[in-house]
Amino acid sequence: MSLPQKVTVSEVGPRDGLQIEKTMLPAADKLRLIEALADAGLTRIEATGFVHPKVIPQFADASEVAEALPRRPSVRYAAFIPNRRGAERAVAAGVDDLKCGVAASDTFNRLNVRMDTATGMRSLEEIAEVAAGTPSRVVGVVATAFGCPYEGAVRFEEVDRLFTHLVGLGTDLIYLADTTGMADPSAVKDRVTRLAERHPDTRVGLHLHNTRGLGLANALAGLECGVTDFEGSIGGLGGCPFAPRAVGNICTEDFVHMCHRMGIETGLDLDRLLDAARLAQDLLGRNLPGMVLKAGPADALHDPEGTREKVD
Amino acid sequence: MSLPQKVTVSEVGPRDGLQIEKTMLPAADKLRLIEALADAGLTRIEATGFVHPKVIPQFADASEVAEALPRRPSVRYAAFIPNRRGAERAVAAGVDDLKCGVAASDTFNRLNVRMDTATGMRSLEEIAEVAAGTPSRVVGVVATAFGCPYEGAVRFEEVDRLFTHLVGLGTDLIYLADTTGMADPSAVKDRVTRLAERHPDTRVGLHLHNTRGLGLANALAGLECGVTDFEGSIGGLGGCPFAPRAVGNICTEDFVHMCHRMGIETGLDLDRLLDAARLAQDLLGRNLPGMVLKAGPADALHDPEGTREKVD
Repeated sequence: MSLPQKVTVSEVGPRDGLQIEKTMLPAADKLRLIEALADAGLTRIEATGFVHPKVIPQFADASEVAEALPRRPSVRYAAFIPNRRGAERAVAAGVDDLKCGVAASDTFNRLNVRMDTATGMRSLEEIAEVAAGTPSRVVGVVATAFGCPYEGAVRFEEVDRLFTHLVGLGTDLIYLADTTGMADPSAVKDRVTRLAERHPDTRVGLHLHNTRGLGLANALAGLECGVTDFEGSIGGLGGCPFAPRAVGNICTEDFVHMCHRMGIETGLDLDRLLDAARLAQDLLGRNLPGMVLKAGPADALHDPEGTREKVD
Repeated sequence: MSLPQKVTVSEVGPRDGLQIEKTMLPAADKLRLIEALADAGLTRIEATGFVHPKVIPQFADASEVAEALPRRPSVRYAAFIPNRRGAERAVAAGVDDLKCGVAASDTFNRLNVRMDTATGMRSLEEIAEVAAGTPSRVVGVVATAFGCPYEGAVRFEEVDRLFTHLVGLGTDLIYLADTTGMADPSAVKDRVTRLAERHPDTRVGLHLHNTRGLGLANALAGLECGVTDFEGSIGGLGGCPFAPRAVGNICTEDFVHMCHRMGIETGLDLDRLLDAARLAQDLLGRNLPGMVLKAGPADALHDPEGTREKVD
């Protein structure tokens, strides 16, 4: 098993995590959460989405949040960008990374952003045009890269076609998104390895969901074939409002805990990530699915005296 | 990645799953669940535990359940056996496999079965003596094989010492139990590989818990180093009453779903496993943590017409 020595974790909780939440968080609370995430050492944080507020009301404050982000030299902030208008707003607000993508399934594209795949690909070109000559850069995503909940299997050739299109727009990091949790470890290894061979100058990242419990197993498969860029959501917050029964991204701190146990560096402080996860729970007023949040890290020992005694 | 073509799943829900439940299930309900598990194709089912009813009241009916098990030629039934007395009762009740073990941590042994490790090892000898010359056989378990919640790290040499002791008692299948979810994929590969090299005539099985979300990642690590015997709990039922904040075993049907997606045969019918998981939920009157139970299998497609439409 050849594992990377170090990985980069991109936190998507404030965007992918919050977009499905019914609780509308005030911008000040979002900024508190983002600050807690930066305090834990995260250097890539997806902070909001520049989508029409009628589509995702949670992001009506996208410009307000983006303009007030706690600026630190080491942190790049990203925002989800569906179209040219979103890109213009994000560039104006000083967003570092314009996260934009297209799904490898026509049906999913039509339901998710009301465009077919071809139109989605042109939209990516427009976003790249807006970014050109500004400090903002494009980071690509190929969604439903391991399967579509409506169409089923997604051909590798289609994923590669969209990946190649994104490479052509000048992005050097493209995430394969398992939008509705249809990937398995073999599929992850197969697709990542083939794409990395075909596009040696582009980093293949993984954006995984835990819909069917396979999130960390799929992440392990990615680590084993050399992936160093992973997205996660603090506390396991999230889901996709337009994907049936989708649950959240892999939980950032659970993934980090796994990496640390395996000797893989993340540059992150697990205790402070857990603080951020608890803050997210407090802000939303509900428990999140993160497991380390409940059980504590594996190296936090228990006092035998405090254990419930057996009766006999 | 070299994966086995076929694995054997041992279901422990009726024992490891139920032992922590506050709801006392009538024997008839336990037998309904066991029958549903056998209907799904499971050939190894841990049905009960022959422990003192004051220690685990849920198993006061151990003999009644064991004697009424739905006998099928292909199914071997196991029971958890803590001592000689339990072994005698299990043999009398016609149990096929006496599941017995010892923890690789003195503190854990003392809290779990009120014996130190040395006494626990002698107890295993007594159980093997009871089984000798009967149709029942011993299946071994080394508990806390990847760490103890009280003592922390557990030395490989100690795990090997107990494993070797069990081999000496004539068992050809020994599970390494990650009793409180302290394993990680690297540790699984390391310990399994070294034990398999040292004990080529004994199968190394894995009994994993999902305490820190690593259950299926650890199972994947096991598959990748050739493990073919895995324990799981239907619906993810379970935990350990004497292990702080331990959550259940890996979920049987989620593990099976992963195997099938990767082309690994299990001989099991996923839909009927899901039926059994739903029955377990009904009997206990609560939701279980299984993920495929909520999301459905990855190959069950959704109707785009039934999807909530975007507003814009």
